[in-house]
Amino acid sequence: MSNTEATEKVHEAQSAALELANVSEEQRNDALRSIADAIEANSEAILEANENDVRAGEEMLEAGEYTQALVDRLKLSESKLESIAEMVRSVAEQEDPLGKTLSARELDEDLELYRVAVPIGVIGTVFESRPDALVQIAALSLKSGNAVILKGGSEASHSNRILYETIVEATEEIPTGWAQQIEAHEEVDTMLAMDDEIDLLMPRGSSEFVSYIQDNTQIPVLGHTEGICHVFVDSEADLEMAEEIAFDAKVQYPAVCNAVETLLVHEAVAAEFLPGMVAKYENADVELRGDERVREVVDVDATTAEDWDTEYGDLELSIKVVDSLADAIEHITAHGSKHTESIVTEDADRAGRFMRSLDAASVFHNASTRFADGFRYGLGAEVGISTGKIHARGPVGLEGLTTYKYHLEGDGHLVATYAGEDAVPFTHEEFDGEWSPGRRSR
Amino acid sequence: MSNTEATEKVHEAQSAALELANVSEEQRNDALRSIADAIEANSEAILEANENDVRAGEEMLEAGEYTQALVDRLKLSESKLESIAEMVRSVAEQEDPLGKTLSARELDEDLELYRVAVPIGVIGTVFESRPDALVQIAALSLKSGNAVILKGGSEASHSNRILYETIVEATEEIPTGWAQQIEAHEEVDTMLAMDDEIDLLMPRGSSEFVSYIQDNTQIPVLGHTEGICHVFVDSEADLEMAEEIAFDAKVQYPAVCNAVETLLVHEAVAAEFLPGMVAKYENADVELRGDERVREVVDVDATTAEDWDTEYGDLELSIKVVDSLADAIEHITAHGSKHTESIVTEDADRAGRFMRSLDAASVFHNASTRFADGFRYGLGAEVGISTGKIHARGPVGLEGLTTYKYHLEGDGHLVATYAGEDAVPFTHEEFDGEWSPGRRSR
Repeated sequence: MSNTEATEKVHEAQSAALELANVSEEQRNDALRSIADAIEANSEAILEANENDVRAGEEMLEAGEYTQALVDRLKLSESKLESIAEMVRSVAEQEDPLGKTLSARELDEDLELYRVAVPIGVIGTVFESRPDALVQIAALSLKSGNAVILKGGSEASHSNRILYETIVEATEEIPTGWAQQIEAHEEVDTMLAMDDEIDLLMPRGSSEFVSYIQDNTQIPVLGHTEGICHVFVDSEADLEMAEEIAFDAKVQYPAVCNAVETLLVHEAVAAEFLPGMVAKYENADVELRGDERVREVVDVDATTAEDWDTEYGDLELSIKVVDSLADAIEHITAHGSKHTESIVTEDADRAGRFMRSLDAASVFHNASTRFADGFRYGLGAEVGISTGKIHARGPVGLEGLTTYKYHLEGDGHLVATYAGEDAVPFTHEEFDGEWSPGRRSR
Repeated sequence: MSNTEATEKVHEAQSAALELANVSEEQRNDALRSIADAIEANSEAILEANENDVRAGEEMLEAGEYTQALVDRLKLSESKLESIAEMVRSVAEQEDPLGKTLSARELDEDLELYRVAVPIGVIGTVFESRPDALVQIAALSLKSGNAVILKGGSEASHSNRILYETIVEATEEIPTGWAQQIEAHEEVDTMLAMDDEIDLLMPRGSSEFVSYIQDNTQIPVLGHTEGICHVFVDSEADLEMAEEIAFDAKVQYPAVCNAVETLLVHEAVAAEFLPGMVAKYENADVELRGDERVREVVDVDATTAEDWDTEYGDLELSIKVVDSLADAIEHITAHGSKHTESIVTEDADRAGRFMRSLDAASVFHNASTRFADGFRYGLGAEVGISTGKIHARGPVGLEGLTTYKYHLEGDGHLVATYAGEDAVPFTHEEFDGEWSPGRRSR
């Protein structure tokens, strides 16, 4: 496929996006259900295509190019496909993120301003090798009325192609072109340059990859590059609680971005807290490193300066003793990635200081960092996690794939009436009301 | 000032931003009031400095480099300073955009998630030659708890310097470094490169200038490059109303981005509507151009292809006859700048189609495009108008200078409890409640 073709596809998505804004909730949900049905009906062919990817992946594994984990993630099965179909059906069941009136304000008699939730437009996505990612991203985009450009990992190319075709065939009632697939690496660069046509980019993958995207496009990017999260055990902590939280935050699932990477311990409780904590971690095979003051109390390896800026993503943890709450805040400000930070303390004022002072998407009091997740937050399906501060922050649900539009209903209103010497004042009164064309609510 | 100094200033702003998040509403409002007082107390020196700018401006005017309008905008007076001080006091009076709990959700018993409005952090601004712009931007930033980098036009350098000094001296109670001034052009480029330190850019000025900023930074930009707005007179329009709206949208104040640039007229009403409309515009010295079908009815100059993409910003207007509502939508989609579009019609369904189909920040029914403005919308002081779709759209008030943070209050909650075979289900119940550290609301 040439880059001209990639450009063409983005243009098609752009046209479809305009029509999609007029597609009803029912039509979108029907289309989602027919995607689910089609995946089940087409399972034999999908598994056959997936077989090709897995075979190629196993060759790469033997050649030492791929890891076993990557090959495992590639693999689909009948039951995996069923759960993918279920996921798509559950997206159909979610509350419609579109059309809601977010606020209504009377500006003057018969002049009413409504803020209405609408799709963003065209969303460009680049994602990792799990073939279910393609289906999930397409489903969330459709639900939120957005056109989507899908670029999956080349390792999953056979699976992605047939899943994409299945989706397109199942959604003939939806404006043609709403979902576009691109496959070659160069086409990603074509996409990155189309900032007039693509409204938002959602890359998923390694930190390096997301950084590359951010550095090479003018399109807004929603994503996160790193998750360096901390748990701070305060002088006023319930130490039993602290031990359980710090353990859960690392061990419950260490490979994810909301797992803790550095444990900070107030010096007043270090001697009492560390021995038991370290024993518990070591029991779970967590590889520990500590600074000098940690090593005065327990026998662990020494940290280097790099440890404080490292996302281990594994059963590894660095520990540091700090002199004060202020020191903990300073350390996190210097080394955190604005993702999720947790304090364990029984002192509400100290918790408040920690939570207000830190610039992070999520700040927790007496809870494990692992709660930072769209599903746990009750946002429905998670689109991604953002460590940026603009538009959407932290775990992002369907709402993050919407924006708003102002709808003003008037009755021949002129600005001249509200200007100059005899200016009529605005009333500016909020009211409860849903926009519907031509009907004024008050 | 060297670029190292510019870098240093941005770093100082970044430190101040973290402290600013803890400054109370009362402290911020007190500081705003002391800015207003200081401007009044310091008026003699400010006017003296301004004199220098005006003198230099007049020399440039004689040399044909500046326009009279630019020199006029530069000029301060005792009464202008008073109204600037009043503006700052009115910002102090506005509702606090910070600290509000935007939503509260129980995840499980004693585990409560709050979404809280917080400042964005460091905002970089570049603005035009009016010296009151510096004060307005500084006041809005302070009110919203953000640190700010101020870069004004060089024409106003003397005025800006003394206003900046006045502001800094008046806000000694606010964390030092919260407002930074940069002056040289090269320093703008230094700022554009500091995407790790600056969270948002708000450029104001010409379209070319805003485009330059967008093309040369990874920092999110909130602004608008063009305002090509349309009024569509539908076949079902009340033609008297249409005439008044189309007139107001152009003539009430033609130099601004929400003024209409192209009038679209449905062919069914063109013969009846155009003669009166054209006479009314010509009475007000509006220079008119029309396409062929317009010129079949009225005697105006011919449009060229460029007219449809031109923001006149003056008493000029292009007129086009369209065959249908769909044609009007198509024309606006091709040529509009996603700013503000208005339909005049008595048919609610047709209004709805127009408003839903167009991808613009503001879509109006039976009202002048000139209403698209933060003050008229009731947003309080306007930070700017955004034609982007991410974060803030259309007129942006103080809310656009905020983001949110998730605060989770737990009681030793672990993710392990909610995972695996005996997973406890989440309750995910929204409730009304304000976050306060350590106190759970339910």
